[in-house]
Amino acid sequence: MSNLWDVESIPFVGAEDPRQGLGFHYYQPDRVVAGKPMKDWLRFAVAYWHTFNQRLVDPFGDGTARRPYDGLSDPMDLALAKVDYTFEFYRKLGVEYFCFHDRDIAPEGDTLRETNANLDRVVDHIADLQADSGMKLLWNTSSLFTNPRFVSGGATSPFADIYAYSAGQVKHSLEIAKRLGAENYVFWGGREGYENIWNTDLKREQDHIARFFQLCVDYAGEIGLDAQFLLEPKPKEPTNHQYDFDAATTIAFLQTYGLDDHFKLNLEGNHANLAGHTYQHEIRVARAAGMLGSLDANQGDKLIGWDIDEFPSDLYETTAVMWEILAEGKIGPQGCGGLNFDAKPRRTSFDAEDLFRTHIVGMDSYAAGLLVAAKLHEDQYFEDLVSQRYSSFDSGIGASVEDKTATLASLEEHALDVSQADLLAATHSDHLESVKATLNNYLIQTLAHA
Amino acid sequence: MSNLWDVESIPFVGAEDPRQGLGFHYYQPDRVVAGKPMKDWLRFAVAYWHTFNQRLVDPFGDGTARRPYDGLSDPMDLALAKVDYTFEFYRKLGVEYFCFHDRDIAPEGDTLRETNANLDRVVDHIADLQADSGMKLLWNTSSLFTNPRFVSGGATSPFADIYAYSAGQVKHSLEIAKRLGAENYVFWGGREGYENIWNTDLKREQDHIARFFQLCVDYAGEIGLDAQFLLEPKPKEPTNHQYDFDAATTIAFLQTYGLDDHFKLNLEGNHANLAGHTYQHEIRVARAAGMLGSLDANQGDKLIGWDIDEFPSDLYETTAVMWEILAEGKIGPQGCGGLNFDAKPRRTSFDAEDLFRTHIVGMDSYAAGLLVAAKLHEDQYFEDLVSQRYSSFDSGIGASVEDKTATLASLEEHALDVSQADLLAATHSDHLESVKATLNNYLIQTLAHA
Amino acid sequence: MSNLWDVESIPFVGAEDPRQGLGFHYYQPDRVVAGKPMKDWLRFAVAYWHTFNQRLVDPFGDGTARRPYDGLSDPMDLALAKVDYTFEFYRKLGVEYFCFHDRDIAPEGDTLRETNANLDRVVDHIADLQADSGMKLLWNTSSLFTNPRFVSGGATSPFADIYAYSAGQVKHSLEIAKRLGAENYVFWGGREGYENIWNTDLKREQDHIARFFQLCVDYAGEIGLDAQFLLEPKPKEPTNHQYDFDAATTIAFLQTYGLDDHFKLNLEGNHANLAGHTYQHEIRVARAAGMLGSLDANQGDKLIGWDIDEFPSDLYETTAVMWEILAEGKIGPQGCGGLNFDAKPRRTSFDAEDLFRTHIVGMDSYAAGLLVAAKLHEDQYFEDLVSQRYSSFDSGIGASVEDKTATLASLEEHALDVSQADLLAATHSDHLESVKATLNNYLIQTLAHA
Amino acid sequence: MSNLWDVESIPFVGAEDPRQGLGFHYYQPDRVVAGKPMKDWLRFAVAYWHTFNQRLVDPFGDGTARRPYDGLSDPMDLALAKVDYTFEFYRKLGVEYFCFHDRDIAPEGDTLRETNANLDRVVDHIADLQADSGMKLLWNTSSLFTNPRFVSGGATSPFADIYAYSAGQVKHSLEIAKRLGAENYVFWGGREGYENIWNTDLKREQDHIARFFQLCVDYAGEIGLDAQFLLEPKPKEPTNHQYDFDAATTIAFLQTYGLDDHFKLNLEGNHANLAGHTYQHEIRVARAAGMLGSLDANQGDKLIGWDIDEFPSDLYETTAVMWEILAEGKIGPQGCGGLNFDAKPRRTSFDAEDLFRTHIVGMDSYAAGLLVAAKLHEDQYFEDLVSQRYSSFDSGIGASVEDKTATLASLEEHALDVSQADLLAATHSDHLESVKATLNNYLIQTLAHA
Repeated sequence: MSNLWDVESIPFVGAEDPRQGLGFHYYQPDRVVAGKPMKDWLRFAVAYWHTFNQRLVDPFGDGTARRPYDGLSDPMDLALAKVDYTFEFYRKLGVEYFCFHDRDIAPEGDTLRETNANLDRVVDHIADLQADSGMKLLWNTSSLFTNPRFVSGGATSPFADIYAYSAGQVKHSLEIAKRLGAENYVFWGGREGYENIWNTDLKREQDHIARFFQLCVDYAGEIGLDAQFLLEPKPKEPTNHQYDFDAATTIAFLQTYGLDDHFKLNLEGNHANLAGHTYQHEIRVARAAGMLGSLDANQGDKLIGWDIDEFPSDLYETTAVMWEILAEGKIGPQGCGGLNFDAKPRRTSFDAEDLFRTHIVGMDSYAAGLLVAAKLHEDQYFEDLVSQRYSSFDSGIGASVEDKTATLASLEEHALDVSQADLLAATHSDHLESVKATLNNYLIQTLAHA
Repeated sequence: MSNLWDVESIPFVGAEDPRQGLGFHYYQPDRVVAGKPMKDWLRFAVAYWHTFNQRLVDPFGDGTARRPYDGLSDPMDLALAKVDYTFEFYRKLGVEYFCFHDRDIAPEGDTLRETNANLDRVVDHIADLQADSGMKLLWNTSSLFTNPRFVSGGATSPFADIYAYSAGQVKHSLEIAKRLGAENYVFWGGREGYENIWNTDLKREQDHIARFFQLCVDYAGEIGLDAQFLLEPKPKEPTNHQYDFDAATTIAFLQTYGLDDHFKLNLEGNHANLAGHTYQHEIRVARAAGMLGSLDANQGDKLIGWDIDEFPSDLYETTAVMWEILAEGKIGPQGCGGLNFDAKPRRTSFDAEDLFRTHIVGMDSYAAGLLVAAKLHEDQYFEDLVSQRYSSFDSGIGASVEDKTATLASLEEHALDVSQADLLAATHSDHLESVKATLNNYLIQTLAHA
Repeated sequence: MSNLWDVESIPFVGAEDPRQGLGFHYYQPDRVVAGKPMKDWLRFAVAYWHTFNQRLVDPFGDGTARRPYDGLSDPMDLALAKVDYTFEFYRKLGVEYFCFHDRDIAPEGDTLRETNANLDRVVDHIADLQADSGMKLLWNTSSLFTNPRFVSGGATSPFADIYAYSAGQVKHSLEIAKRLGAENYVFWGGREGYENIWNTDLKREQDHIARFFQLCVDYAGEIGLDAQFLLEPKPKEPTNHQYDFDAATTIAFLQTYGLDDHFKLNLEGNHANLAGHTYQHEIRVARAAGMLGSLDANQGDKLIGWDIDEFPSDLYETTAVMWEILAEGKIGPQGCGGLNFDAKPRRTSFDAEDLFRTHIVGMDSYAAGLLVAAKLHEDQYFEDLVSQRYSSFDSGIGASVEDKTATLASLEEHALDVSQADLLAATHSDHLESVKATLNNYLIQTLAHA
Repeated sequence: MSNLWDVESIPFVGAEDPRQGLGFHYYQPDRVVAGKPMKDWLRFAVAYWHTFNQRLVDPFGDGTARRPYDGLSDPMDLALAKVDYTFEFYRKLGVEYFCFHDRDIAPEGDTLRETNANLDRVVDHIADLQADSGMKLLWNTSSLFTNPRFVSGGATSPFADIYAYSAGQVKHSLEIAKRLGAENYVFWGGREGYENIWNTDLKREQDHIARFFQLCVDYAGEIGLDAQFLLEPKPKEPTNHQYDFDAATTIAFLQTYGLDDHFKLNLEGNHANLAGHTYQHEIRVARAAGMLGSLDANQGDKLIGWDIDEFPSDLYETTAVMWEILAEGKIGPQGCGGLNFDAKPRRTSFDAEDLFRTHIVGMDSYAAGLLVAAKLHEDQYFEDLVSQRYSSFDSGIGASVEDKTATLASLEEHALDVSQADLLAATHSDHLESVKATLNNYLIQTLAHA
C-alpha cells in the first residue's frame, strides 16, 4: 500500500497486531457506543487549511509537502481542482464533515468584489459536490489575519477601513454558511489582540469587536442563518496577547457585552496548553457555563511554547475529552458541534499519504478515548467517586448551604465549638494516586477488549 | 548604621551617590506629584505575614530569618509583643497602612471560639496602637489555607464542616474589619481550586463559594461594614488550578454569579506573570471592566515558575503600573486601594535590617515609577500616540461603527471596491521600537532630574 | 482493608478488574521479563525523606500527614522507632532497597561531633535491621541544604567555615555508606547554584565544588568505599540557577574538572521537565555519554513550574524510561543503579495507607512500562525503524563519513551536480504520527495480555 | 524626516528631549569609554537576513515589509541590487560590520555547482563594495535549514546525500569567508536536533556532526582560513530539541569530541531565555569556560515561548551584557567578536525607515549599557562586593581549600566542634535587594550625566 491516495477506502483492521497496519484500529463509524454510533459522538471534520493548503513550512524553513495537485499553477484552476481532491479524500477516509476559511478555498482578487466572485465560483463547485456526496459543513470562517492588511487586526484594527473590509468579508462568509448549510460559524481572532499594550486602547478595541459580533448576529437573523456562532480561545501567537485568551476570558468578554446568548466556544487542545491549562479543564469550564460549542481536536506539547497543532494521539487526553462529552451528552447546544482536526502532519511527514495516516491516528485515538470514557461512565466510576466526596453537602449543614437557608451566623454557630481534632476528622484522603492507577486500568482493560 | 532597627526613621538621601546609602532615593511622602502628595498616590502598606511572620523558609530549607523578637516562645506573649515591633517598624519606615490575615496575628486555640478569643486580645492591642499612631488598616483577610483542615479548600472544600468553619472564621474577620476601620477586605482563595479535575465537581464548588461570598456581602450589610470587598487572582500554587486564575477569569466568575457589584480585584505582579501576563496587562483588564481595587505590589521572575514575592525593583514595571494608576486617577473605586508589599526578603537577606532595606527598595522603585509616569502623562505622550493611532474611528466610516449606525451591509459597501493597494495604504507602521526607546528616554531623563 | 499498615504484605491481584483493588496489578517481582526477574530490572528503592519524614507541607500550608509514629516527641526516640516502621514498610511492600539523607534519620546536636553521635546510634540500628532483613542501601547522601547554615550553599558557600562543615559532614556520610554497603552515593546540589548572578563568582564557586568532589573521591579511595558516585541534575529551585542544570550541563562540569571517570548521573523525571526536557531525553543523553547511573523515578506536571515529585503513573513515560534501560542492558555502570521513588503523596493523600497506595502505583506503572518496553525490544520495533532510517550511512558516501575517509572535498564532489529533485528524492517521510499510533498499540496490546 | 532612507547619515541628537528625535541618543562611535572608542567595544554588525530579506511573515500571516527594492523580480537582479542597498544602509547607519548566510545573498540554481556560481557573482560585488567602503565581515554562515532537503537536518540528516550536500555547501562558504576576510565563521544548527527521540539515533547523529566540524577545521587549515569558528546555542525551534541547547550543553559536546580548541560560542539573548536562562548567565558560563566568541544581540520576551528576535531595548540587560564584556576585556578570543543584530522589526513596524529606527534603538541601548557598565567597573562596585563576599577563602581554612592542601579530614577537624550558633555567625546577609537598588541608581545616574 505504497500510496494511500490510490486506495478506495481506509479499512478497519483492528488492534491485534501492534505494528501499524494501514487502517483503523479502533474507529468503526457504525459501532454503537453509549447508545449512539461512534460517528455520531465524534462527528469528525477535516480542516481545509492544514490538510490541503498547508505546505509544512515553519519559521525556519520552506514547505516540504508533496501533494497530488502540486503541478497546477493557475490559482483558480488549482482552487477548483483541489476541491475535487478534498472530496475524494473525505470519501476515502470516511468522514462526513469539513471546515474551511474563506481564503483557503479561493484566491483574492484586487477588490473584495473580485475576491467574492472567485469565492463564489468555488463555493458553487463545493455545493455540487456536497449534493452528490452528502458531505456536511461543520463550520466555515473568515481569515482576518493572513493578509498584510490585517497587520494590526481585523475587527480590532485601529484602521477603520480595515474594520469595514473585515465586516464586508465576514458578511459574505455568513452568506456562504447559509448557502452550504454550515452547522456552526467560527470566529478565531487571529490578530485580535495586541503586540504591545502601551500603544493599545484595549477597551476601545474590545468595544469595536463586540459591536462587530453584534452586527454579525443581526445579519444572521436577517438572512435566516441558524448556524451556531462560536468563538475560539487562544492565549498568544501571533499577537503577544490574544483577547480570547482562554475559555474563562472569552466568557467574561461575552457576558460583559451581552453576547453570551449568541455564542458558544470552539475549544482547541493545543490552545488550552499554551494558556497553562489541560484540554479537559477548558472543556469543563465551558460546560459549567453552558458554553461548550465544538472542538478543534488537536494536541500540543507542553514542553513547547508555540502552537504545534499535532494530530491527537495521547489516549489520556482523548479519554478525558470524550468523558466530558459523554457527561454532557452531546457536543454543542443541539449536538451540532464536532471534532475538527485543526492539525497538520509533522514537517517530516511530508508524503501525500501522511494526510491519511495522520487522520487515521487522530480518529483512532478519539475512538479509543470514546470507548474508555463510555466504560467509565457505564461503571459510574467518577460519578460515584465525586458524589461520595461531596456527600456532606447532601444533608445537614451542607444542605443548608445549597438550599440557601444558611447564613454566616448559622454556619458560625455550627463551627464555634468543634475541636481541631474533630475538624481534621471531617476531612478525608482522596487517595488520588489510586484514582490515577484505576484510570490506567480502565484504559488498558477497555481497549484490550475493544 | 549597622542595625536599622536602631534608627529613629529612614531619611531621604537622594540619588546623587549611586552606591546605596541607607535612605530613600526617590520617595518623599509629601512631595506633590500629579496634584497629590506621593504618599496619597502610593498608600504603601506593610504585609504582616511576609514582614513579621515569614521565617524565610522554602521547600528545601528551614527559616533563616533573624528578628528582634526571636527570643519569645509563649505564643500569646509573642503575638502581643510582635504587634509593638510592627508599629515601631511602621513609624520608622514612614508608612501609614498595614494588612494582615487573622492567623498572622494570633495563635489558634482548640476551637474557633477559643481562637477568636486569642484574636480579640491582639486586636484590642492593635486598636490601641492605631489610636495612638494614626496607622490605618488597608485591608485584612482570613487564612483559609494554612491549617491542615483546609487541605481541600475552605469555601470550596468538599467537606461541609470545613465550609461551615470557614464561614464562621470569616464572619469574625469581617467584624474585625469593622472594628479596625479596614478600607478593604480581601479574599485570596489560597486553596480554592483543584488538585485534580477528575475528582472535582467544579460547578458545585463554584456554586458553593459564590454563595459564601453572597453571605459575606449580606453580613457586611448587616453590621454596616463598608470596606470594599476584593478578590485576588492567582493561577496556580498551591493548587494545580486556582479558580481565580487571572483578572478576566475572576471577572467572569463575578458576572456569572451576579457578584460584580460587590467586588473589585486586588492584583499582584507575580501572580500576573505566573498566569502568562504582565502586571500592566492585569491592571488594564481590571480598569476596562471597572474592577480595579487594590495592588499587591511585588514582582516575579519570569524565568521562575513559582511565586517568589520579590520586593519590586524593576523600574519598567513600576512605571507601567503607576502610569495605569494615574490614567485611572486613583486606585480602587473611591481611591481606597493602595500598594501592599506582598513581598518578602530573599532567603539570603536574613538580617532584621533587611526588612527596612527591602521596603526602601520597594517604596523607592514605586516612587520613581510614579515620577516617570507623571511626566509621561504631563506630556500626554501615550495619550497622543494612542488617539492618533485610532483616529480613523473619530469620523466617517469609523465613527459610524462607534455610534452604532453602521451595519454589515454599510461596511461592505464601503469596502467592496477598494483596491488591495489602497487597503495597505490605510495601515500605518506603529514604529514600536522607537516607542520603547522613548520610554527609556523618559525613564532616564525624568529620574535624572528628580 | 481499611488500613494498609495492618496487612502482612501487598498481594498481586492482576488487572482484570479496572477498579483499584488494593494490590499489584502488574508488578510480580519474580516474573522473568527480558531474561531477568522484574525486581532485578527495577530495583525499587523507598526514599526515607518523602515517605517517612515528609509532613505534606507546601509553601502555603502546614503538614497534613497522618503517620503511625505521630505520637512520639523525643527526637532520638522518634528517630529510632521510625526506623522500625520503615523496615516494616519495606517488608510489607516487598522492596529490597532504600535511600536516605543523613539528616533524615537522626536529629542534629549542637556540634557536628554530637550530630555524628546521634547519627551513629541510628545507623547501628539500621545495620542490625539490614542484617535481619536483607534490605540493601541503594544510596545515601548528605543534606547540605536544609539547615540555615547552608543559606548560600554548602560546597559552593562563600563562607569557608560552611564549606569546611560540609566537607566534614560528607566525610561521615561516606563512612556510613561504607558501613551500610551503599551501592551508590549521591550528591544533589540542593543549594549549589546562585540566587543572583551579580553577587556570584560562578567560576570560583565551581572551582570550590570541583575540589570538594575530588576530596570525596580521594577519601573514598582511602577508606575503600566502592559505591558509585552520582550527581543529580536539577535546573532551578531552590536557587534561581542550580549548577547541575541538566544532564548535559553536569557532564560539561565533570569533563571540565576531570571528574568524569568518577561520577555518573542520577536522573529524575520531574527535574527533566523543569529543565525543558522529557525524562527519556535526559536518560538518552546520559547513555550517549556513558554516564547513566541511577534513576529518581518520579513524574512532574509539565504545566506546573515547580518540583511536585509525584509518584509515576504515566505509562507513556514509564515505557520510554524502561525502553532506554533495556536498550542499555542495565541501570548504572555495573547495574548498580535502581529506581528510587523520590516521590511523595499528594497533600490530599494524607492517610498512612496512602504510603502504600502511592508506592503500588509507582511500582505497577514501572512494571507495566517494563512489559511494554520488553515487547518493543523483542519485536525490535524501534531498532528496525532507526537502522532503516540511517541506512544510507551503512555504505557508499555515508560509510565514508563514518570510517573517516571522507573530506569536505570528496563530499562536495559527490554533491556538486545533483539536481534539486534528486536531493529531495534522497529524503523520506518518517510517518511520525503512525509511529505514535504503533506505540499506542504496543501499550494496549502488551498490557492486555500481561 | 519622513523617510529615513533619504537621509545621508544618522546624527547624534543626545537624550535631553525624551520624545524620540530620529538620531542617536547615546551612541557616539568615537567617544572613548573604558579606554577604547565605543565602536571598538561594540563592533555592531547588521544581519543580512533579518534586515534585508525578512518580509515580516509569521506563521499566521504574509509579509508586511515595505522595502525600497520591492519592485525587482528577477532573482539575480534583485540579489545584486540589494547588495547596493545594504552598503548604503551600513554607511548611513554608521556601522562597520555585517553578517550573512550564503542563501541570503543569492538564489539557488538547480545544482550546487549552479548555486555556487550565483553566489560567486554576488560575492564579487560585495568584495568590490567592501574595498570601497572599508566594511568588514564579522561572520558568514551557511543555511542548512531552509530548503526542504534539510527537512531532517544537514550535518545530522539521516540521509547521507544530504550530509554530503551540506558538506559541499559549507566548503564553499569557508572559501567565501577566506575571500571576504571574515573574522569569524558561525555554525547555527538550524535543524540539528530531533523532532522525536523515538526515531532518532542521538549518538550517531552527534558523531556525524562532530566529524563534520572536524572536516571544516581541517579544510580551514588547508586553505589558511583563520576566522574563529563559533557554535550558536538554541534550545528548541524549529526542532523539539536542538543539540546545541545552551552554552553548557554546547561546551559538553565540544569537549566530548575534542573540538573545544577550535570553537567558541556565539550567544543570543532570546535563545538564552528560551533555554530558561538570562543572557548574562549564558555569557558568564561561556566566560568561565574560556569560550566566549561573539554575540547575537537581540532580546526575547520571557512570557513568550518562541523566538521573537526583538531589537534590544532593555537597559538592565544591555548593562549586564556589557558588564560581562568589560570584565572579560574583549569579545572573542582576540577581540574578534562583535554585536550582531540578529533582530527584526516587529511585523507592525513595516516601513523601510523602521530598519533605521530599530537599529538606532539597538545601538543606543547597547551604548547606554556600555556607559553604565563602565561606571560600575570604574567604581569596582561589583568587584568589591564579590571579593568581600568570598574573602573567607583568602586565608585560613578557606585558603587551604584553594591551594589544595585541605583534605576531608582537615576540614572535618576544623568543623567538628563548632556550635550551631557559631556556624550561623559565619554566614552573612547579602542584602540582595539593596544591590538591585544600587544597580538602579547606577543606571539612572550614569545615563543622566551621559
